[in-house]
Amino acid sequence: MTASAHPHCPLCTDDGGLLLHRNALLRVVRVTDTPAHPAFYRVIVNAHVAEFSQLASPERADVMDAVVAVEQVLLRELAPAKVNLASLGNVVPHLHWHVIARFADDAQFPAPIWAPAVRERDTTALQARLPALDAAVRAALVR
Amino acid sequence: MTASAHPHCPLCTDDGGLLLHRNALLRVVRVTDTPAHPAFYRVIVNAHVAEFSQLASPERADVMDAVVAVEQVLLRELAPAKVNLASLGNVVPHLHWHVIARFADDAQFPAPIWAPAVRERDTTALQARLPALDAAVRAALVR
Repeated sequence: MTASAHPHCPLCTDDGGLLLHRNALLRVVRVTDTPAHPAFYRVIVNAHVAEFSQLASPERADVMDAVVAVEQVLLRELAPAKVNLASLGNVVPHLHWHVIARFADDAQFPAPIWAPAVRERDTTALQARLPALDAAVRAALVR
Repeated sequence: MTASAHPHCPLCTDDGGLLLHRNALLRVVRVTDTPAHPAFYRVIVNAHVAEFSQLASPERADVMDAVVAVEQVLLRELAPAKVNLASLGNVVPHLHWHVIARFADDAQFPAPIWAPAVRERDTTALQARLPALDAAVRAALVR
């Protein structure tokens, strides 16, 4: 926690997923509690800031560069139907970007992952690729 | 339509909402077909590109500057509970950013707007503010 941390904010008190990269501004984690969407990463700003526009322009650029780096790894490694990006924060108003690989046969496609599921998908094969995917994400971020 | 336009893409053949601003790279529209969420704008890249990372870095910065400009207007004019940003494009894979003012009493809050509605809200008062809000969005974008 930093001096600006909020003691009741889960993204101030916890990494918010499997930590893959951290610098002074942000960290990148893989989300581990959405079994229907295993290839789901988050770029989380370390400071407790709610809205993207509250960051200064250079910080916004650095955050989006991290989002783009993760997106490019997902596109290259998984060839998903689409990558979805979102900064919502209604439940946890601490700035974080969702970066999610979507597939034509996933639980909600083409609807957003927050819509009701329309099918079940066996994600075993995708889960088996996560260690290599995590390594590729780490490598992209240290560049 | 530009030379790169796709004849069957609705964002190549149509503005995609009430047009408020357009430049060589992008346009900004207000979304008019989501009555539960009247304060809903989109920043749409003019070229038929699917993924954010397919834009060059200066273009990404310009797109996010437009997203931020709209977000700042929503925060200043409406004091929403949160602004939601998303680039999904599963149905229409032509790069566009949703910029949505969310309110504690709106149809899905705190869930994303793509989740099932949990309540009805009378949006009459918010709708009445849209002309002034549109004018503020236009003014922010020509700066």
